[in-house]
Amino acid sequence: MTAQIRRSQGPAAEEFAFFHNVRVRWAEVDPQGIVYNANYLLYADIGMTEHMRALGYPYPALEAFGTDLFAVSASANFRSPAVYDDELRLGVRIAHLGRTSLRFEVGIFRQLDLLADVLLVYVNGDRETRVPTALPTAFIDRVLEFERLLPTRK
Amino acid sequence: MTAQIRRSQGPAAEEFAFFHNVRVRWAEVDPQGIVYNANYLLYADIGMTEHMRALGYPYPALEAFGTDLFAVSASANFRSPAVYDDELRLGVRIAHLGRTSLRFEVGIFRQLDLLADVLLVYVNGDRETRVPTALPTAFIDRVLEFERLLPTRK
Amino acid sequence: MTAQIRRSQGPAAEEFAFFHNVRVRWAEVDPQGIVYNANYLLYADIGMTEHMRALGYPYPALEAFGTDLFAVSASANFRSPAVYDDELRLGVRIAHLGRTSLRFEVGIFRQLDLLADVLLVYVNGDRETRVPTALPTAFIDRVLEFERLLPTRK
Amino acid sequence: MTAQIRRSQGPAAEEFAFFHNVRVRWAEVDPQGIVYNANYLLYADIGMTEHMRALGYPYPALEAFGTDLFAVSASANFRSPAVYDDELRLGVRIAHLGRTSLRFEVGIFRQLDLLADVLLVYVNGDRETRVPTALPTAFIDRVLEFERLLPTRK
Repeated sequence: MTAQIRRSQGPAAEEFAFFHNVRVRWAEVDPQGIVYNANYLLYADIGMTEHMRALGYPYPALEAFGTDLFAVSASANFRSPAVYDDELRLGVRIAHLGRTSLRFEVGIFRQLDLLADVLLVYVNGDRETRVPTALPTAFIDRVLEFERLLPTRK
Repeated sequence: MTAQIRRSQGPAAEEFAFFHNVRVRWAEVDPQGIVYNANYLLYADIGMTEHMRALGYPYPALEAFGTDLFAVSASANFRSPAVYDDELRLGVRIAHLGRTSLRFEVGIFRQLDLLADVLLVYVNGDRETRVPTALPTAFIDRVLEFERLLPTRK
Repeated sequence: MTAQIRRSQGPAAEEFAFFHNVRVRWAEVDPQGIVYNANYLLYADIGMTEHMRALGYPYPALEAFGTDLFAVSASANFRSPAVYDDELRLGVRIAHLGRTSLRFEVGIFRQLDLLADVLLVYVNGDRETRVPTALPTAFIDRVLEFERLLPTRK
Repeated sequence: MTAQIRRSQGPAAEEFAFFHNVRVRWAEVDPQGIVYNANYLLYADIGMTEHMRALGYPYPALEAFGTDLFAVSASANFRSPAVYDDELRLGVRIAHLGRTSLRFEVGIFRQLDLLADVLLVYVNGDRETRVPTALPTAFIDRVLEFERLLPTRK
């Protein structure tokens, strides 16, 4: 979402430790025969959901802490169109952890070709007041452990 | 939904006292360039919503009575495809009132051409238990008054 | 879609030889916390697509014959709501084969509970003119073979 | 999409010469009772479509020039949630014109409150090869004329 993390090439498949596959549905394709743009955000949301499940924090992930994750911003680069019946590989990682926020990066691949990449920024907030709240330590530790598996972790 | 009310020709525009217009969105059209089938149910739902608003019972229409309308069944006939940017006229009427249920009929027109027709059956039920409950008299009276305006009312 | 095939109980899971699973997405759930009605038609469409793939006739299934399947009507019974993250089992079968048309029946189950059932009627038509055309014999034979596997085939 | 144009406050309503209204549909709202994130991109797409129509370039806007607009990237800031039945005002403007590309800015307002803002970047490309192509002069002139109406045009 911010310029410093925009990369002209986008992420490579090997940067992701976690993948979830989806098949493009007829309803998701537009009259040009390509996936409707907003549906790349839908795919990213599915990927983030499954990544959180794999972390051991399925939705409502942080309910036990009295907080929830609220979407703050999203951005997407459309590089090459996905088409009907494509089996897409959603690579998902937590690319940044702040004190109260986290950023997911989702690469949408057809085999090794990056079709689109999406960044989703969430803030951890009180479930009622939405006041930003520090991410739980247990959650942070789990994320660091999970993403440490990445081959190209910097 | 039941055979006796299925008509090979479908409803004519003059059978409706109420219309609401929608323009077909790019996201609602499939790779064949025609509206995706499930979206005719979406249009019918929008039409029913606006019809209830026109009746003076906007959603949550029957909350004051402690009940809500629960969808029981839906059926649609697809007669001629709607395409991108069509300005559709949704004709909506309550075609049947039972003691606890009601049936909406929605005709989806491009000018005078019927493209699809949809029937939606709802039951009035307790908001918590969903137990079927008699429709409020005030609501029934209002429906009879509203639909009496129909030129071809049987 | 027609009265004689409506059954008050709906189909049982053992009537289906073919199943395809989908997980309910956040985007498919409405403010009441239940799957939005039109999305049951989306699920039925996905089920029909995968059933045709399993038959050996993936979309565009009948292109080699110069024809395509055009949706004529759809109907759905909503019996019990599906909720976020449900793993739904879509039971799909071709319940009727006519000379030029076919009818899919889709049962949407949570484990053994039938949540909704959908009928989809298609006509085989010329790809350009949409004139109804006899279903190819090879396709009919394949359907009869495939559905013969049904334990409760009548 | 790029950092220099991100503004912490987002655009004000008076920055837009063009508005198009949409009412939030039941199907667009998620189980938390707020508009599903990806639907803000849907709204932005509708706004851009109507803005192009107002310019005199309804879709397929640039077909006469042998080109089409291809989406390159999108970004959104979610500031305050829209809810069911909100009447949203979509303020739309072309915020940047390059030689072959253009950037739409869409502000999504409830009355004067900015709920979300979206940037959409498109490249003008050959309809077949998608090779970037200079925007037609007539189109650029029309955009400059149209957006010159802006009270706060810089």
